[in-house]
Amino acid sequence: MNTPVGVVSKEEALKLSGMDFLQKLKNGDLPRPPFSETMDMIITELSDGFTVFTATPDLKFYNAIGCIHGGYISTLLDSAMACAIQTQLSPGTAFTTLELKVNFIRPVLVKTGAIRAEGKLIHCGRTIATAEGKLYDEQGKLYAFGTTTCALMPIGVPTNGSGE
Amino acid sequence: MNTPVGVVSKEEALKLSGMDFLQKLKNGDLPRPPFSETMDMIITELSDGFTVFTATPDLKFYNAIGCIHGGYISTLLDSAMACAIQTQLSPGTAFTTLELKVNFIRPVLVKTGAIRAEGKLIHCGRTIATAEGKLYDEQGKLYAFGTTTCALMPIGVPTNGSGE
Amino acid sequence: MNTPVGVVSKEEALKLSGMDFLQKLKNGDLPRPPFSETMDMIITELSDGFTVFTATPDLKFYNAIGCIHGGYISTLLDSAMACAIQTQLSPGTAFTTLELKVNFIRPVLVKTGAIRAEGKLIHCGRTIATAEGKLYDEQGKLYAFGTTTCALMPIGVPTNGSGE
Amino acid sequence: MNTPVGVVSKEEALKLSGMDFLQKLKNGDLPRPPFSETMDMIITELSDGFTVFTATPDLKFYNAIGCIHGGYISTLLDSAMACAIQTQLSPGTAFTTLELKVNFIRPVLVKTGAIRAEGKLIHCGRTIATAEGKLYDEQGKLYAFGTTTCALMPIGVPTNGSGE
Repeated sequence: MNTPVGVVSKEEALKLSGMDFLQKLKNGDLPRPPFSETMDMIITELSDGFTVFTATPDLKFYNAIGCIHGGYISTLLDSAMACAIQTQLSPGTAFTTLELKVNFIRPVLVKTGAIRAEGKLIHCGRTIATAEGKLYDEQGKLYAFGTTTCALMPIGVPTNGSGE
Repeated sequence: MNTPVGVVSKEEALKLSGMDFLQKLKNGDLPRPPFSETMDMIITELSDGFTVFTATPDLKFYNAIGCIHGGYISTLLDSAMACAIQTQLSPGTAFTTLELKVNFIRPVLVKTGAIRAEGKLIHCGRTIATAEGKLYDEQGKLYAFGTTTCALMPIGVPTNGSGE
Repeated sequence: MNTPVGVVSKEEALKLSGMDFLQKLKNGDLPRPPFSETMDMIITELSDGFTVFTATPDLKFYNAIGCIHGGYISTLLDSAMACAIQTQLSPGTAFTTLELKVNFIRPVLVKTGAIRAEGKLIHCGRTIATAEGKLYDEQGKLYAFGTTTCALMPIGVPTNGSGE
Repeated sequence: MNTPVGVVSKEEALKLSGMDFLQKLKNGDLPRPPFSETMDMIITELSDGFTVFTATPDLKFYNAIGCIHGGYISTLLDSAMACAIQTQLSPGTAFTTLELKVNFIRPVLVKTGAIRAEGKLIHCGRTIATAEGKLYDEQGKLYAFGTTTCALMPIGVPTNGSGE
């Protein structure tokens, strides 16, 4: 992928709805988030209250005891769930993750092959939103699942020039 | 750090107590776990039921919205908490993380400087152990905290030759 | 309901599969669990990996700030999720809840009317099982959700006489 | 205890700081919350960011498998943790629990005797606060622990007459 890696300024991000922001990320019309590059994960599906992040387990994500680190799995689920919430946000609304819960069902290995983390909105209120996530291999076997709570902050769309 | 990166075989790992295994990791007498290298984190303290992982936030761990990704913070806390439990294990005991819960209190930025994830054992039973963790900057300000549940599996120490 | 309230002995309970045990509870062929009586909740649906607990909010379950206490909601979800797991257990298998996570979406009030906590199995392994739960009113509005992790302990079916 | 059972109106509650409200509850100067009565629990300690709820396990809190129901334990921890947060609130600030996480370490039985749930503030921001809790018997043995996240809502102190 030739998309440059980088972070979008808050001002630019706030001008877009969450869905538009994610659609541009997915299409490569915005710089690729650095941690997505480091973790080698990409958004592969995106719809109202739903996202999929896809990744391929690699030895560089192994822990000391011979399987993919729980932190890597948590990263995929956190990303998919937070973005499922982000699809609901109107321009001018910032958000942050308050908490993340992940259950690990079976070890993910290099031989597991490509994995997909599905994030699904549970509820989006005015200031709090929740989502759930599931991590599958390509045969649909479940490896992990999670839930998250995010805070939504209606900051307002920056006016002309404020993003300079 | 010149320690080679790699994964220790289960057979070799099971011959050591959890504390001996971690001490060797810390000293560079065992290969550095791949994900520790990828995430640029190291064990800096190790005692009975307690560990510290230290890392320095870098732009490559940033998410799309301009701060360190929650998955990175979860990785540090998961590592510190799991290793606090591992310090309790006798040779021949494998373990796996069942679940992880993380709360994010304030964003971690590059300017935050070095951060330390402290893992502290809560309880170690025969088959289940729990730990809690806190993530601080160098001034002792709290950025995140978590808890974890691990399953302990008394497999037995491999006999001579089984590790070949 | 005229079913007597009481606790079944471990020996009697272990002779039954989890599903048979729950079916007898639901039918009133076993004593009603004391906390079900205190909390005024009953099992209303039961199938493979799925249960529903139904209750009607009452002022006696209110907290100091004027709505149903989160502990009451947690009780309903914990019960529904643990029993969804219990439906999978063969005779001779005991179980215990390791951890419970609940999110509260909106307050439950007396005027909410009857509520139903649905528990649904996520995964049942040999020693660990997980489930998720959702709490709805009769119109299908979501009030809370949760997940749980249980440990399964294959103790064996008591032989004749051991239950005396 | 001869304190009447009841719920304080939101208007009356908002006139008090969280600490004053809890002090009056503890002293019996406000009606006893209904669920505290149903669950037979009382506040026994109260200080800045810290509370203790005390209860004595009774058969009426038993589940179907012969020990105190996890929902009862969750209720004690939820109460202690939420009130630890409430001690930080100025008049005019409402709050609600967003999520609750509980780990169960060993079964609580009638023979366990009196138990104490300690709630301890972790962090109190402007709109979000977090706390942790531990449940002990009188010998200091640990039975369960938890964490919680609450949302704080600065509503304002009702003006004269609004509470009628």
